[in-house]
Amino acid sequence: MNNPILVEVWRGPLVESRHRGAVAVVDASGRAACAVGDIAAPVFPRSAIKAFQALPLVESGAAERYGFGDEDLALACASHSGEPAHVAGVERMLAKIGLDASALRCGAHWPISQNAAAALARTGTPTALHNNCSGKHAGFLCLACAMGVDHADYFRPEHPVQRQVRAVLEDFTGAVLAEDVCAIDGCSVPTWAVPLQSLAYAFAKFGTGRGFAPKRAATAARLREACARQPWFVAGTGRFCTEIMQKFGERVFVKTGAEGVYCGALPELGVGIAVKCDDGAARAAQAIIAAVIARFLPLDLVAYTRPVLRNWNGFEVGSIRVTDAL
Amino acid sequence: MNNPILVEVWRGPLVESRHRGAVAVVDASGRAACAVGDIAAPVFPRSAIKAFQALPLVESGAAERYGFGDEDLALACASHSGEPAHVAGVERMLAKIGLDASALRCGAHWPISQNAAAALARTGTPTALHNNCSGKHAGFLCLACAMGVDHADYFRPEHPVQRQVRAVLEDFTGAVLAEDVCAIDGCSVPTWAVPLQSLAYAFAKFGTGRGFAPKRAATAARLREACARQPWFVAGTGRFCTEIMQKFGERVFVKTGAEGVYCGALPELGVGIAVKCDDGAARAAQAIIAAVIARFLPLDLVAYTRPVLRNWNGFEVGSIRVTDAL
Repeated sequence: MNNPILVEVWRGPLVESRHRGAVAVVDASGRAACAVGDIAAPVFPRSAIKAFQALPLVESGAAERYGFGDEDLALACASHSGEPAHVAGVERMLAKIGLDASALRCGAHWPISQNAAAALARTGTPTALHNNCSGKHAGFLCLACAMGVDHADYFRPEHPVQRQVRAVLEDFTGAVLAEDVCAIDGCSVPTWAVPLQSLAYAFAKFGTGRGFAPKRAATAARLREACARQPWFVAGTGRFCTEIMQKFGERVFVKTGAEGVYCGALPELGVGIAVKCDDGAARAAQAIIAAVIARFLPLDLVAYTRPVLRNWNGFEVGSIRVTDAL
Repeated sequence: MNNPILVEVWRGPLVESRHRGAVAVVDASGRAACAVGDIAAPVFPRSAIKAFQALPLVESGAAERYGFGDEDLALACASHSGEPAHVAGVERMLAKIGLDASALRCGAHWPISQNAAAALARTGTPTALHNNCSGKHAGFLCLACAMGVDHADYFRPEHPVQRQVRAVLEDFTGAVLAEDVCAIDGCSVPTWAVPLQSLAYAFAKFGTGRGFAPKRAATAARLREACARQPWFVAGTGRFCTEIMQKFGERVFVKTGAEGVYCGALPELGVGIAVKCDDGAARAAQAIIAAVIARFLPLDLVAYTRPVLRNWNGFEVGSIRVTDAL
């Protein structure tokens, strides 16, 4: 199936590049409120489902036992920019469980934030703490400690932590997560591909608690609350996830994932949203989910649905535009 | 027209992302040797045609007058990585014409090379010299000086330098470059969209000299020679343009452009190549042109046509694969 062109990138008088994709908006009963493109095709959710990966951490009581607060939980759900307060926050999480950065198995990369990367370069080089997934990994380590299991291999599919995560993901998505849809994520934990519509369905459940046992529903609400209270810790300065949750609080939950994935929940409407840009472009996925949100809620998101493109001199050279296919 | 999927990005057992695009391979008589997708659609060539933008610099005698050698000419054709020797080279070009970095109007950005960016961050912030286009701009300034015109606005479409560039581009491509296809490039000079097949045709002429007056043919050969002798200055450490021209010398000319453009010339076969990835992805455009080159010449390019993808821990997580549609 050919997914439609959902985003055009204009330069001067012409379209320079085009992005295709699919969008699923589904309620907690599984009914599609909006379907564009092939919403049955399997998609690796990547980092978009970090809040689901953090669920066992909270539901098990591990987070409470080790004194994890809003910031810690937001970091556990985050693809953070590696800014100093993100790094310090993850260090605090690790200290609370009696560990340090040497326990992290996510690998090191330069901070997403260019300012943070430049500042870091003046004094050193990146560590695993700067990896955008370090908060999630600190959460996995916390769960391993609370379970009393060896945490050395916490990132492997067969480790008790990842088994719990997998069971949660199956409950959320209603999909069977077997080896034929399993791959390795950028931070080395497993990622399982599910149909885009199942991903939207999972976010509808996450946003409403419907379809969950009471404890799981309360845990989902707790994670949404933590992210809404500390949205800067979910992404960082100038990032879409942060700005949207800063503006709209618990009305809109959004989370980016690598390779053009964006997911979200609109609790007051009872729907979940899942976007996949065919080619993996973040710029397109972000514009698409902004347009989807603006379609369902009367929020002004034109700065995100039609951003102006400027060059190195600050001259306006074009714009990114969501098409009528959406 | 729907361009075909030319590149798949695999993660574990599944395709995670897909890139569509078009490919034109054309000889100097305008005959297509290979056409995939819509090769009549207009494409902004962006930086892929820097060697054509450098042609007036050499043909006018300006480069010779100011003592520009192979390195300088390679930098004039370059999208360099902002490594120290690139920056020093552009400073030398400017010194030869009695100017310095303050004359550059390309704007500043961090070096493309992450190592160079980290090293720079330790001591300062980027200037226009670090802009990947600074060598091209130094070439424009040299031409302005040789013409005896005010160089202040050398980047504007109405400036004598850009008028000469435009006339050269019309001669190369055979296309009319009017306002309806004109936009502003990342470095603020004009960029004109032309059909992909016209771009390939221009590269066939560039690679063979056929269809040009003798002086222009000799100038094109001089620029190809300079790039083949100093390929590191055309891009930088680890970059595809550099590695290909280091390996194959004058047998293969290649040049990347922003938004998924890649162009090249295979002089011994008399053909030019133009690739445009619909969505603007560099990773796809590079794999596509590598596959096109390997189809026309018996060169081993599998490292580029099917690169392995590794995560932050160095684990193999997938690969980029050119499809059978090519």
